[in-house]
Amino acid sequence: MQTNEREFRQAQRFLTEHDNFLVVAHVQPDGDAVSSTLAVGWLLSCLGKKYVMVNEGPIPKRMEYLWEADKIVNLSSAPLEAAYSHIICVDCADFRRTGKSSQYFAENAEILNIDHHPTNDGYGTCNLIVPHAAATVEILFDLIAFMDLNLDKDAATLIYTGLLTDTGGFRYSNTTPKVMATASKLLEYGVDGPGLSELLLEQMTLPQLRLLTRALNGLQISEDGKISWVSVNDEDLRVTGAIHEDLEGIVNYPRNIQGVEVGLLFKVISENAVKVSMRSAGKVDVARVAQSFGGGGHVRAAGARIEGTLEEIVPQVLDRVKLQL
Amino acid sequence: MQTNEREFRQAQRFLTEHDNFLVVAHVQPDGDAVSSTLAVGWLLSCLGKKYVMVNEGPIPKRMEYLWEADKIVNLSSAPLEAAYSHIICVDCADFRRTGKSSQYFAENAEILNIDHHPTNDGYGTCNLIVPHAAATVEILFDLIAFMDLNLDKDAATLIYTGLLTDTGGFRYSNTTPKVMATASKLLEYGVDGPGLSELLLEQMTLPQLRLLTRALNGLQISEDGKISWVSVNDEDLRVTGAIHEDLEGIVNYPRNIQGVEVGLLFKVISENAVKVSMRSAGKVDVARVAQSFGGGGHVRAAGARIEGTLEEIVPQVLDRVKLQL
Ligand SMILES: [Mn+2]
Ligand SMILES: [Mn+2]
Repeated sequence: MQTNEREFRQAQRFLTEHDNFLVVAHVQPDGDAVSSTLAVGWLLSCLGKKYVMVNEGPIPKRMEYLWEADKIVNLSSAPLEAAYSHIICVDCADFRRTGKSSQYFAENAEILNIDHHPTNDGYGTCNLIVPHAAATVEILFDLIAFMDLNLDKDAATLIYTGLLTDTGGFRYSNTTPKVMATASKLLEYGVDGPGLSELLLEQMTLPQLRLLTRALNGLQISEDGKISWVSVNDEDLRVTGAIHEDLEGIVNYPRNIQGVEVGLLFKVISENAVKVSMRSAGKVDVARVAQSFGGGGHVRAAGARIEGTLEEIVPQVLDRVKLQL
Repeated sequence: MQTNEREFRQAQRFLTEHDNFLVVAHVQPDGDAVSSTLAVGWLLSCLGKKYVMVNEGPIPKRMEYLWEADKIVNLSSAPLEAAYSHIICVDCADFRRTGKSSQYFAENAEILNIDHHPTNDGYGTCNLIVPHAAATVEILFDLIAFMDLNLDKDAATLIYTGLLTDTGGFRYSNTTPKVMATASKLLEYGVDGPGLSELLLEQMTLPQLRLLTRALNGLQISEDGKISWVSVNDEDLRVTGAIHEDLEGIVNYPRNIQGVEVGLLFKVISENAVKVSMRSAGKVDVARVAQSFGGGGHVRAAGARIEGTLEEIVPQVLDRVKLQL
């Protein structure tokens, strides 16, 4: 039984009492955002409701196999004709995370806000926020059960996808006993867990691997072995044919070196600006370091955009990290 | 309830009726072999039995944190004084896999053979073989429950470790609903799943990462994009300071490239011999390719030692792989 039964009942009422919905996830959607969008769509079709699923931009290529993924409207290339009065926001910690999708929210639109981010400010008219959930799909799994709907393999695949991506393949600290028990139930529905792991977590494109290789060739490590970093510039992307999202994951390589406390990725974004991604093995609060440069994030994963050349910025960032060690 | 209750009861009898045991796992023990050895030790200490845990050689460094891991006798440096009459073999698909440990099996010793390999030939006097188990620790988890012993955090950590390593972090096709349900129960005992994942699956030493980088610099891919390969020689190991076990995992990089069906790692072992490791994305049976060179393995992971120089062997292997495509 959910401890927050009242929120679940309110969400159920929101979904059953209205008939036409706009389903929205955060900009630059990750696996959980895409899966949650589609899982809400699946739930609404079970209820026989009308709905449109949207995102400000395209969804990641490797998500395109998911149930009705092709129905998610990319608003940057296909604007809608009308605004909606009933909105379901998933995986959006605050209203701004809906991006340009919010242009299609009617004035006084009612919003059902379903999310797992602890920082969610409850911007909905109805809020189903479960901060201890590993992913928004976990909340949707519970909502589907709460509403006595029968999961099928398609829906189970959506939930598994969101769990897999938001827990880094059942490796992050949000991998609770409940996550594993849910994953077990989902596999019972015939979900191809190993296939999804391969597709979503292991596969790389050749340009992506070439980019990683180039970055690793320049890997550096501090004398005490506690800070390691790599840097990437546009030339690296151009030469390898990689795209921006291929940068994701590179920072884990310096971070995962035995003994390293902080891993850094410096991405040169212009002649006078660098974006730094920071990952901590746990001891250092990289959010504090990022904040000191006007950035933000979590204790173990943070980032900032800093004015200056790479040569200027690297020693500055190293110095501030050292202060925290 | 176990469908193979009789085997479980026989194993229980073997453990309760005797008093002094030798616990043995396969040579060059992996995570499941080490964890299974220790889990049997844990079980025997619950029963108040005497036992010695051994292995032909050392256990991997990153397993040393496990419960009583320091008690596993490395026979290559510390021979035993006597032979044993009651042996428990874990994770050994055949008798030879016990290696030099078998020197300490008394004549007519009784062997309890606990294993999950489908090819296990039942060499024990008592056999508890569960081919659909993802890991030997999964069988031990069931045996502990069958014997009504109370798991604790130490034992749960052992079981989790074996599951994690033998399923590649819940990613391989042996990741069944039962594996995930078991993992869920283990986390309830306070196992630090994310910490274990980091230590066992994500961490690399700096020499290991330098070796990977060097290998990736030489990555090649066939014109049709279906075969990709890297090669490593002793010079690479020497320059990077890496050790032999650091080669593990490198072959996954060529294999995980989108569109690649077969990934290969060529390790030059002498002037006139090369060891090739083969990984298939599923379509090609690499065991057949390996067999054609006198090697062996599984459909998706196989290997062979081939006489000749790297320059001679690479085109030969590529040709035989192409025949299977
Ligand atoms: Mn998200
Ligand atoms: Mn093994």
